[in-house]
Amino acid sequence: MWVLDVASIGTLALDGNPETERAIDALDEADPLKRLRGEFELPAGLIYLDGNSLGALPKRAADRVHRVTVQEWGQELIRAWVSAGWVDLPRSIGSKLAPLLGAGSDEVIVADSTSVNLFKCICAAADINKGRTTILTERGDFPSDVYMAEGVERVTQGRLRHRAVEREDVATCIDGDTAVVVLSHVHYRSARVHDMKGLTARARDAGALIVWDLSHAAGAIRIDLGAAGADFAVGCGYKYLNGGPGAPAFVFAARRHHATMRSPLPGWFGHMAPFSFADSYRPADGIARFACGTPAILGMSALDASLDVLQGVDIGEIERKGRSLGQLFIALVEHNCPDLVLASPREAEQRGCHVAFRHADGYAIMWALIERGVIGDFRDADVLRFGFAPLYVRYRDVLEAARVLHDVLTSGSWREPRYRERAAVT
Amino acid sequence: MWVLDVASIGTLALDGNPETERAIDALDEADPLKRLRGEFELPAGLIYLDGNSLGALPKRAADRVHRVTVQEWGQELIRAWVSAGWVDLPRSIGSKLAPLLGAGSDEVIVADSTSVNLFKCICAAADINKGRTTILTERGDFPSDVYMAEGVERVTQGRLRHRAVEREDVATCIDGDTAVVVLSHVHYRSARVHDMKGLTARARDAGALIVWDLSHAAGAIRIDLGAAGADFAVGCGYKYLNGGPGAPAFVFAARRHHATMRSPLPGWFGHMAPFSFADSYRPADGIARFACGTPAILGMSALDASLDVLQGVDIGEIERKGRSLGQLFIALVEHNCPDLVLASPREAEQRGCHVAFRHADGYAIMWALIERGVIGDFRDADVLRFGFAPLYVRYRDVLEAARVLHDVLTSGSWREPRYRERAAVT
Repeated sequence: MWVLDVASIGTLALDGNPETERAIDALDEADPLKRLRGEFELPAGLIYLDGNSLGALPKRAADRVHRVTVQEWGQELIRAWVSAGWVDLPRSIGSKLAPLLGAGSDEVIVADSTSVNLFKCICAAADINKGRTTILTERGDFPSDVYMAEGVERVTQGRLRHRAVEREDVATCIDGDTAVVVLSHVHYRSARVHDMKGLTARARDAGALIVWDLSHAAGAIRIDLGAAGADFAVGCGYKYLNGGPGAPAFVFAARRHHATMRSPLPGWFGHMAPFSFADSYRPADGIARFACGTPAILGMSALDASLDVLQGVDIGEIERKGRSLGQLFIALVEHNCPDLVLASPREAEQRGCHVAFRHADGYAIMWALIERGVIGDFRDADVLRFGFAPLYVRYRDVLEAARVLHDVLTSGSWREPRYRERAAVT
Repeated sequence: MWVLDVASIGTLALDGNPETERAIDALDEADPLKRLRGEFELPAGLIYLDGNSLGALPKRAADRVHRVTVQEWGQELIRAWVSAGWVDLPRSIGSKLAPLLGAGSDEVIVADSTSVNLFKCICAAADINKGRTTILTERGDFPSDVYMAEGVERVTQGRLRHRAVEREDVATCIDGDTAVVVLSHVHYRSARVHDMKGLTARARDAGALIVWDLSHAAGAIRIDLGAAGADFAVGCGYKYLNGGPGAPAFVFAARRHHATMRSPLPGWFGHMAPFSFADSYRPADGIARFACGTPAILGMSALDASLDVLQGVDIGEIERKGRSLGQLFIALVEHNCPDLVLASPREAEQRGCHVAFRHADGYAIMWALIERGVIGDFRDADVLRFGFAPLYVRYRDVLEAARVLHDVLTSGSWREPRYRERAAVT
């Protein structure tokens, strides 16, 4: 895969060298995705490098939410479940998402949160793999991936046991007692990519099923659940898919499991015939049984509209640009900010679309950056994360962000006490 | 409790008798809640009697959703989690709801769907009541209330067993093996009210815990979870609370359970310190541990704004008006439409704020009514439901709805084949 050769921009100094400036502008000019930035509402004067946490607002989403609220809810009222297609959204958004995941259009549904969907997948997989008792997770993975496995252990009173192991030990720890393996395709801190195909094959060979968390991968890099032979997957709607704060999540199940899999959360919307109000649960056909309660229509509508921005866009181009932006940022920061230690793979193909650096005072530095109009985020204890959402971040933004970061570090402005006061940021 | 004496309106004939018309208008004029109708966007020419399924759009909610989308998401972006208070919404909306439920402000949180919250409460209650094995539900209750108990049975491989019994047998079937009882305060079809205080006491005396589903009660009638000594409760945000389609649901846990209860769905947002990204789950204090994934901010914001409509409104007045509207409708329909059979209690204090009638061709009749601008809903196999949301339905609407219903029935227009084609309506 071709990504940016940083040597092509000339000097890596942040001194305004005209040759570098021109080279950067030429990259933006030649960017095959450049027209997509116009799809977003972006605040003037801000460099937003946190689309890996909350994607920016697509103009289409703003229009759609307004229409759904004022017209569909306000005027159509209950009739909108049919007339505006609300009842179909979980499936239709799933179909729209499927190509981005290498999934069939009947293998994905949008429902609930990533955490809740993890619970569904872990229980469904363990139910298929009866007789085995271990749920294997990776220590240091995103909390919910690990916690939900703990939750399943508790609910089953230890019949299923959770075991978290170090990243480098995951492959060798999949054994004859492993019912389910839960892994993130792209790690939420380091952006390091797991070998989906290799690990899925390793699980299959050991008779285990695998659940992939695609939260930091979907919409950022190429994913091929089908080619990998993955069993289940979940992921988040509000990062690179730009579905809005707390957007509904998605869940994938391979077609071969559809007939036998059962959701541990058999809500009425996952029933074969929800409007028969039958006295016992009969699962809907296929992936539809992973729906649970009444779908969250405001959030679903925003996500649905946001996904239209991605229609017809080559995910390979997205991946290439995201990694190129990251490559440029790494080169600029390593050249100019020696106090920051790279905490992501230097090799582009081993990374998602964000980049992490470590610094003991990372929290204060991030707040100082945010005050200067460069928004990234911080992850305990010392990680600064910078996300390069390929749909709207420019090479020019990367250069400016590196310049501001360099300024903050050399001026020592982040040492002011006010930057050390803690507040929650997701 | 004083409700409308239907004799006060004079004749029950729908013939435009001026005395009746004046009496109806006088009721609307004297209505202490009449100013609240102006809080809602209501389509012209429509009589909306389905607020028990999807509450109408409060103007405040429309404004708030617009602001959250365009300003908070669009301009504040990730910073809005703190600057716009997103991170506090699950707890702050819970506190706002608490007085409507007779709950303490620290006993309610908004999260997920009613179905998912049922799962949390059933598992948490069974976990507290270890050693007992039965989850008791009522046959014919709303599907998710029953299905989620089936789900718990499956996840626990039968360690917890689900038992559904007839409504009249619930009290006597609570026994020494009952871990949890799940009941709806107001039945979704008949609107019949369960004796919350009596049944909660019965459960307590037998050593069982009780989960109340308040979906058709919250915002419609007086509820006092505290006085009843209820253990857990759940309910829906999109009916009488007007939170919008698929609005987030709420969950209540009595303070005495806070220290020991555990959620079966320990997502990262229910962690003691979500932003520490710790490797093991430590539950947040109190009700906050019933949060799970990242909160759905668009839906939460709409619900939060909608609840402001109810601030300072006497829930006793709401209950009285809702039941009076129902009383008037029952009298008018029974007097004029003998083919319809009342399927709700005739006694106001045994009813919520909706009224059900049976007719073998209920489906066709409801569609004919909807086409005439009177919106109720239909529940298999033969139930026509009419909801009288006290915040925006007028006595005049009830009179008009009864008149249209009478017209439809006497004209036989509902016999046209097109009214028999089925489509899903929630």
